[in-house]
Amino acid sequence: MNISVQNQDKCRIIVDAMGGDFAPQNAVEGAILASDENKNIDLYLVGQKEKIIQVLNEKNLQFDESKIIHTSQVIEMGDAAAASLKSKPDSSIVVGCQYVKDKKADAFVSAGNTGAMMTASTLIMGRIPGVGRPTIGAEFPSTRGICYLYDVGAGKDSKPQHLFEYAVMGVIYAKAMGRIKNPSVGLLSMGEEESKGNEVTLAAYKLLKDSDLNFIGNVEGRDILNGPADVVICDGFVGNIILKFGESVPKLLKHLLQETAKKSFIDKLKIGLSKGVLKKSLKNMDYQEHGGVPLLGVNGISIIGHGSSTSKAIKNMVLKASQMYDHQLVSKIENSLKKNQNN
Amino acid sequence: MNISVQNQDKCRIIVDAMGGDFAPQNAVEGAILASDENKNIDLYLVGQKEKIIQVLNEKNLQFDESKIIHTSQVIEMGDAAAASLKSKPDSSIVVGCQYVKDKKADAFVSAGNTGAMMTASTLIMGRIPGVGRPTIGAEFPSTRGICYLYDVGAGKDSKPQHLFEYAVMGVIYAKAMGRIKNPSVGLLSMGEEESKGNEVTLAAYKLLKDSDLNFIGNVEGRDILNGPADVVICDGFVGNIILKFGESVPKLLKHLLQETAKKSFIDKLKIGLSKGVLKKSLKNMDYQEHGGVPLLGVNGISIIGHGSSTSKAIKNMVLKASQMYDHQLVSKIENSLKKNQNN
Repeated sequence: MNISVQNQDKCRIIVDAMGGDFAPQNAVEGAILASDENKNIDLYLVGQKEKIIQVLNEKNLQFDESKIIHTSQVIEMGDAAAASLKSKPDSSIVVGCQYVKDKKADAFVSAGNTGAMMTASTLIMGRIPGVGRPTIGAEFPSTRGICYLYDVGAGKDSKPQHLFEYAVMGVIYAKAMGRIKNPSVGLLSMGEEESKGNEVTLAAYKLLKDSDLNFIGNVEGRDILNGPADVVICDGFVGNIILKFGESVPKLLKHLLQETAKKSFIDKLKIGLSKGVLKKSLKNMDYQEHGGVPLLGVNGISIIGHGSSTSKAIKNMVLKASQMYDHQLVSKIENSLKKNQNN
Repeated sequence: MNISVQNQDKCRIIVDAMGGDFAPQNAVEGAILASDENKNIDLYLVGQKEKIIQVLNEKNLQFDESKIIHTSQVIEMGDAAAASLKSKPDSSIVVGCQYVKDKKADAFVSAGNTGAMMTASTLIMGRIPGVGRPTIGAEFPSTRGICYLYDVGAGKDSKPQHLFEYAVMGVIYAKAMGRIKNPSVGLLSMGEEESKGNEVTLAAYKLLKDSDLNFIGNVEGRDILNGPADVVICDGFVGNIILKFGESVPKLLKHLLQETAKKSFIDKLKIGLSKGVLKKSLKNMDYQEHGGVPLLGVNGISIIGHGSSTSKAIKNMVLKASQMYDHQLVSKIENSLKKNQNN
């Protein structure tokens, strides 16, 4: 399919209709909700055409069928990432990334197989010059607003140079998307002193200290939610675990409240009364509010969602892609890394 | 000072009166609260005698002054761990550990300099045969009750064999202290599949799989609070960060509720009404309820508390030491490691 050039002032976003545990329903519905909300989005759906049309009919959704990019194959959630890209060249994930690579689209959004999505984005879209390893960030609610944590999943066993690149990219993101003037950067460690850390963070500390970033030194686990840094840097293994730990907190809270309610009728009443307020306050701890997470460092906009994404989550992912486009994130990262290498 | 032998059926616990940000007040008060609550505790206080007596007088606390072990030096919170043990041989931490080493006491409890306390316990009390590296565990509230996380601070850059030992020790602790029959063990990683993990966890997976532990495979960040494992194993760098992150959640919650209350008077009323219930439910997320954390793998009972420990936290640390004594934790770990090496 050829995406027409007439809409090139708009942000051309392709949504993976086959991505996620509740695909194609949630993906299709969420994508259309987003393009209804933001008229500057030029939406395309990639996936098995007849299944997409079935959802459109069932949910009575308006969508121009000529903007469905048909693919015959589907990368399943359990498929091995690298192998599936080779064995399924006509899958929604491979084709979606290829459209961005070919400049036929600006962004690709998927709640499908995370590993395949990361690998496809990195290999097909390619890395921005100067990026050794792309990174996934996450936004945590914090007493000072938002804390951006990099990396939360793309890179395990990171080298010090990788941590440094995460910081450069995270700062660009926090500046543009979070409207933070001069984001402060903290290195996640076991103590605030420069001497505290593991082999990798001790070496990364030196790189960050010698850079022109607003580096405030080591921060601790507690500083993600209550700390002084706008951007916190860690290895992807650590960040992935913290992200998932954080996401599980509301479920534990619900359980603890239920246990309390079981023991006393008065408490049960009070909990019932305050349920709505609690839910409202915890909104920011809910990843569905944020949508998925962008993979920074690739040559294009790639947003990766949870397998369990609701249509609301998909909608927010698409809106985020559009915002990243408006802020020209990709070229900003490229320029910042260039500048940093010249220093 | 010679601790009399007449009380050897009791658990002889030495509390570091100089340990913690609010020492000697909180340490002295908490220790006496514990010995009031459990008459099987034979309590000793170590530290600067005149300061301890001053607290006893000010707070009008009954305590036999002959059970104060006077030390002239104090390891400050900011002192370098290893160096301070050499330069301050007559400090409460060094002397407390030496008493346990010399079998003149069964347990030493301190909220002082964590690094110094870990180093002193390891070097002076010595390691249990078969232990390459002692470990600090933490108890997380979980939808299934309690999840024991090892390691949370003693060992960064752990080798696979260290992770394996943490599992052996954690299981003993969960069995004895948590009354769990056959604790299930999960290895903290980025995904459940055996192939997911970093270099160290991939190798540790094999050791755990080949052991006689009830190993259930990899678990993820979300599984600490909501998962299938009684004991979760990770490197100390990761565990320390998760522990501190978890401890900071209630503070964020409070902040989020306050923000909600600011926006609506009705919500403010509802939050006011439910404050007590929330606090009750969150009790288990409060480290002060648990007291400090034991250092497992050393030849004696060593409990390390937060610098900011309240007297309640100190009390719970002392009570925990007494429980560990009753369960003969040290000899159980020694026997289990012996058995494991014979396998």
